[in-house]
Amino acid sequence: MSETAVDVADAAVFDDAALVEERMLELLSQRTQRSRAFAPAYAQLWQAVERMAAGGKKVRPRMLMRAYHALGGTDTRTAVDAACAVELLHLALVIHDDVIDKDLLRRGELNISGQFAVEVMVRGATRHEASAWGEASSLLAGDLLLSLAQSLLARLDLPQQRRLAVLDLFDETLFESAAGEHHDVWLSMHLEASSPTDVLAMLDQKTAAYSFRAPLVLAAILAGSEPSIIAELTTIARQIGVIYQLRDDILGLFGDERATGKSTLSDLREGKETLLIAYARSDPSWQGVEALFGDRELSIMEAPELRRVIEQSGGLAFVESVIADRCRHVHDLIGSAALPPAVKDQLTELTTACSARDS
Amino acid sequence: MSETAVDVADAAVFDDAALVEERMLELLSQRTQRSRAFAPAYAQLWQAVERMAAGGKKVRPRMLMRAYHALGGTDTRTAVDAACAVELLHLALVIHDDVIDKDLLRRGELNISGQFAVEVMVRGATRHEASAWGEASSLLAGDLLLSLAQSLLARLDLPQQRRLAVLDLFDETLFESAAGEHHDVWLSMHLEASSPTDVLAMLDQKTAAYSFRAPLVLAAILAGSEPSIIAELTTIARQIGVIYQLRDDILGLFGDERATGKSTLSDLREGKETLLIAYARSDPSWQGVEALFGDRELSIMEAPELRRVIEQSGGLAFVESVIADRCRHVHDLIGSAALPPAVKDQLTELTTACSARDS
Repeated sequence: MSETAVDVADAAVFDDAALVEERMLELLSQRTQRSRAFAPAYAQLWQAVERMAAGGKKVRPRMLMRAYHALGGTDTRTAVDAACAVELLHLALVIHDDVIDKDLLRRGELNISGQFAVEVMVRGATRHEASAWGEASSLLAGDLLLSLAQSLLARLDLPQQRRLAVLDLFDETLFESAAGEHHDVWLSMHLEASSPTDVLAMLDQKTAAYSFRAPLVLAAILAGSEPSIIAELTTIARQIGVIYQLRDDILGLFGDERATGKSTLSDLREGKETLLIAYARSDPSWQGVEALFGDRELSIMEAPELRRVIEQSGGLAFVESVIADRCRHVHDLIGSAALPPAVKDQLTELTTACSARDS
Repeated sequence: MSETAVDVADAAVFDDAALVEERMLELLSQRTQRSRAFAPAYAQLWQAVERMAAGGKKVRPRMLMRAYHALGGTDTRTAVDAACAVELLHLALVIHDDVIDKDLLRRGELNISGQFAVEVMVRGATRHEASAWGEASSLLAGDLLLSLAQSLLARLDLPQQRRLAVLDLFDETLFESAAGEHHDVWLSMHLEASSPTDVLAMLDQKTAAYSFRAPLVLAAILAGSEPSIIAELTTIARQIGVIYQLRDDILGLFGDERATGKSTLSDLREGKETLLIAYARSDPSWQGVEALFGDRELSIMEAPELRRVIEQSGGLAFVESVIADRCRHVHDLIGSAALPPAVKDQLTELTTACSARDS
């Protein structure tokens, strides 16, 4: 790509991001406005959603917009709505994931459950009531955003066949994400031994389907790409998604909290079954720390011992090697794919960004 | 209506109910089938949803189908899909309502949370894990059904304007139900004094919008009814919905558990803010029992005293008089509405059934 082409592409991506921000704000503030006719707390809920939406990096919408243009799409307005849908789906899943994990914080700040719980505690609610109120608020916010995402897609002005393809993709995406989330909770109970294959399948379902496949394949459907292009994008997107999640699991235990915004204790306390853990379990040294894993009271003094065993078992090196292998594999897939050069550039950059990131 | 016409109408309603059952089963069993490619527990989740769906009385789908025919609609297949969507939305909201209330039973049997929690307790999960697993399963089941309901509506083969009207109705319905549910949880914390007006508005939002307005107005949109018909149906449906809920609140405290399938303790333990309670609060005798209300440990020996105060405060008689007033008002509305006679018959029967039912 020439330098001018890069500049143009960057400028387009910059403009697109602004358009997505603007449209998200419009969609959500309309709803905040409507909610004022109901109870004050309902308006607060929509305001909390607006704040959450304003804070995000919009990684998925940017991915969609860039792929859409690279695939020759020209109807920016339709693509912006689809990009908003992808972001709203992400917010809905994150909110419901926090309900499932009973988290009150997200990236070091009170999430919706936390904000609502704190507010009523101050007003005299019991701890039990406050926590139920926080959870109810998050559960409803997630429902509303999930439905808003789907509604946006259902309203796209598209020929019938393309519209059905978009709806199919949304259905499949939610079906898989829910399967992955369900399996993640299952694995964290450790009722049966889990294999690295189980863990990788779960990551693929829980994250890759909605965070990578959905934005890229939506872009292709909207741009009117051939089925062969969609098939190639599907395969590559899922592979990148798993790389992203493997890096995420490493950062969750060994990352710099200031950079990631995520406590390196929470995955250990939760007993989150990652590939690191699935590997470390097979080492004799695991027995000595097994009781610490999944201990909700795990202290900052005990965690380093657990991390040391995971590292010395070879678990960390193993996952790094899996990431490196998968990166090579993805680069091969991209190399041999019949995709437009601009799309290949995007996928190559995305792979590097996902595998090498430190936040 | 002549006797023959009644027979024909009954036969049509009977056939419609069978078609709805069949289509629901088809939709859900397809998904159970697909879920088998994922974890066994995910397939169990879909099976639990199938059982739940098979057990219902399908009140809302029947309402929609009957109104659709009465309004002159002839595309039974489209109406059946819309009827399934209404039922799926109901199931989703019921499941999420149980998550919010932390209920493990529904109509005396283990609900999805209960079934999933019990199963893993037997396999050695801790109580904390089992309850989190049950809740996660219900939360995800609700998400999946909510989205399936919306997906069915989005796929209806309709002219653009009618399709958008259907999507608008779904959006508004969920927006209001969520507002009502949120306000219901808020009122049950009793952080501020609530008025009968608050309680009635909450009932209208939480139940009337999705259980009565949505099926009747969907029928009218699909049948291509005039906006004036839709406006009249909207008003009448909401009024009937509130009557239904007022009767429900009475049955929740004073009903026959064997007939209703619902414990007459649960609303009291939950501290559910109904019109009965809003009225009883204004009576001096309330102070003597206030501490019992919302007590999660309320015993079967203490409840009668609470019920006695609600009755002797005049609360029960007040709510009965509100129901009677509202029934008269609805009958007047139906009488003066410009609706087809068959629709008026349906609405009249519905009003009577909602106000006088004992289960």
